[in-house]
Amino acid sequence: MKFHYYLPVNLTFGRGRIAEAGRIAASYGEKALIVTGGMSTKKSGLLGRLVRYLEEAGMSMEIYDKVMPNPLTTTAVEGAEAVISSGCDVVIGVGGGSSLDCAKAIAFLSINKGDINQYIFNKETGAGALPLILIPTTCGTGSEGNGFTVLTNPDTGDKKSLKTNAVIAKASIIDSELMETMPKKVLASVGFDALCHCMEAYLSENSQPLVDTMCLSGIDIIRKYLRGIYAGNDEPEAWDGIAWASTIGGMAIYSAGVTLPHGMEHPASGLKNIVHGEGLAALTPVITEASIDGSPHKYAEISKHLGGKNEKDCASVLRNLAGELGITGSLGKLGIKKADIPWMTDNCYRVSTASIENHPVRFTDEEIAELYEKAL
Amino acid sequence: MKFHYYLPVNLTFGRGRIAEAGRIAASYGEKALIVTGGMSTKKSGLLGRLVRYLEEAGMSMEIYDKVMPNPLTTTAVEGAEAVISSGCDVVIGVGGGSSLDCAKAIAFLSINKGDINQYIFNKETGAGALPLILIPTTCGTGSEGNGFTVLTNPDTGDKKSLKTNAVIAKASIIDSELMETMPKKVLASVGFDALCHCMEAYLSENSQPLVDTMCLSGIDIIRKYLRGIYAGNDEPEAWDGIAWASTIGGMAIYSAGVTLPHGMEHPASGLKNIVHGEGLAALTPVITEASIDGSPHKYAEISKHLGGKNEKDCASVLRNLAGELGITGSLGKLGIKKADIPWMTDNCYRVSTASIENHPVRFTDEEIAELYEKAL
Repeated sequence: MKFHYYLPVNLTFGRGRIAEAGRIAASYGEKALIVTGGMSTKKSGLLGRLVRYLEEAGMSMEIYDKVMPNPLTTTAVEGAEAVISSGCDVVIGVGGGSSLDCAKAIAFLSINKGDINQYIFNKETGAGALPLILIPTTCGTGSEGNGFTVLTNPDTGDKKSLKTNAVIAKASIIDSELMETMPKKVLASVGFDALCHCMEAYLSENSQPLVDTMCLSGIDIIRKYLRGIYAGNDEPEAWDGIAWASTIGGMAIYSAGVTLPHGMEHPASGLKNIVHGEGLAALTPVITEASIDGSPHKYAEISKHLGGKNEKDCASVLRNLAGELGITGSLGKLGIKKADIPWMTDNCYRVSTASIENHPVRFTDEEIAELYEKAL
Repeated sequence: MKFHYYLPVNLTFGRGRIAEAGRIAASYGEKALIVTGGMSTKKSGLLGRLVRYLEEAGMSMEIYDKVMPNPLTTTAVEGAEAVISSGCDVVIGVGGGSSLDCAKAIAFLSINKGDINQYIFNKETGAGALPLILIPTTCGTGSEGNGFTVLTNPDTGDKKSLKTNAVIAKASIIDSELMETMPKKVLASVGFDALCHCMEAYLSENSQPLVDTMCLSGIDIIRKYLRGIYAGNDEPEAWDGIAWASTIGGMAIYSAGVTLPHGMEHPASGLKNIVHGEGLAALTPVITEASIDGSPHKYAEISKHLGGKNEKDCASVLRNLAGELGITGSLGKLGIKKADIPWMTDNCYRVSTASIENHPVRFTDEEIAELYEKAL
């Protein structure tokens, strides 16, 4: 057994704790750039509340609200310019995973100069970032629990993560009340993403004991609560559970990495801007069927924790869950065409080398193309 | 569900990884104070190897080898003077929990001036410490995984922990090969201590989901391997398991605290310098019997994870385990007399307020005195 573990997350967890945002942010700076999307945090009133909490704590702020799903490297560059021109000294990401990831990249680019793509492809190493506060309003990426930021380069379609301790948030506020306004379709997608994080970190060749334990507990929680909240059960306990499983998933993938489902999904959503969790739901069962022999014991554990019997029914258990969450499970229905497969296969080797290496089975490029085809 | 989680440990885990000590330490300073006991790290050759690794990495060093079991506040003060007079800029603790805790206190006192007892009793707040590297050679305290240092004031007999993020090690090297030279008696005692950490953090009123998961996995590991290595099974897997369970226990108590067994043991070992794990083995079953109603579900879980049936047999499962490890389970045999009980009861309220508050049952001082008497 050999591993390294370092994950200095600072998590404030609990319903209503968004009210502590001012106190927490004010301990890291005086002027905040709030990074968010254009819609949901305004519509829900959350953005207004956050502004009030920061003002009450004596802070000033600017708002950067141009984040879209599958955030772009160019958006992060623009946000970093907004930080510098406005003199902000702390970055607050509030919203879904896209807003959080974009906030991370902005905080990083405010300190580290040059082309962000060079950092993403490990051709340059950065250090430091403005202090970051993250406030998730969905329960999927787990971005609040790690130092990943996943960005898409609009020129190349490369969707790839920058991994650096510099973008581990100084503080994250995980308040499941903020998640209750998610549309059902979003909940299904992000919930499936969280499940994949727990599965993939557990299956990773790079896994370690604490990660294994965390992942299985995350899978248990998702099994216990995800269908219920999708069906409209608004028990605080269920929302807390799913919020926590999402953070666990984010923490786990930072220590152990993701495997092939994420590795193959990024090319698909990099190319066609599809919803990440739906792409995962299409790919994961197909990849699972082809990978069982690489780690039968772990696939069996996952299946059992999801209510299945053994490794052989793991893929069908996953398909059934996706179906119950109203996810089609087909890349074709998400807009991917057979003609896209060569590009995606090629791009997978370009952006997902670590995920390919972590996977319990090593596939040839022909086999990866076949997996894409089966998931169409 | 409401909690805060922050634990920036940096763990390098694996057999033979002591060889990385030079590289790791050299990234934090140029001259190290090595803090250790007078005997075992010399006898095993470990101290000599560590010196060589540091020299190979271009470091110079001083050795402070005056740490004794149940380390004293006065020893820490003397060690800090050694740091300052010799110009060391990094502190390396190597040995059992006493050496690690003493190294932490030395690193803290090298930066924070004044009376350490004021910090221990939260009358003054310190910040910062010299960079700390911790290398455990026993598998009990878990000191490498947290920001506690437990010290005894020789003037008052107060054995109490200083808790501060400042003494969370910059890096810990957990190499289970270093633990194989432990005498059986030491292994039994520190193994029982690790078990108590996992149990107490899990039972704590201050527990939280990640801690619960970690603790139950730690208990599973201890059940699986501790008897075996005590009986002479030298499988690397077993040593790795127990080493990891110990670190888990240390991490868990930092987030959730300990409960009454530790709270009542500290007065006993503060007064009579008894072996900590043996004191715990005497007290824990007695306290368990009296506390079941406060958390029947959790006592049942602990019992089941240790091979028992339910909450009712939890105490006997613990007694049997202690017996199999050759621990007498009697405070009387450790030198505590009935006449000591009033002082210990009084001292428990003085040094263990947090542990008393975390415990699932709140006892009166008469009841605590009775528990001591039952454990005699």
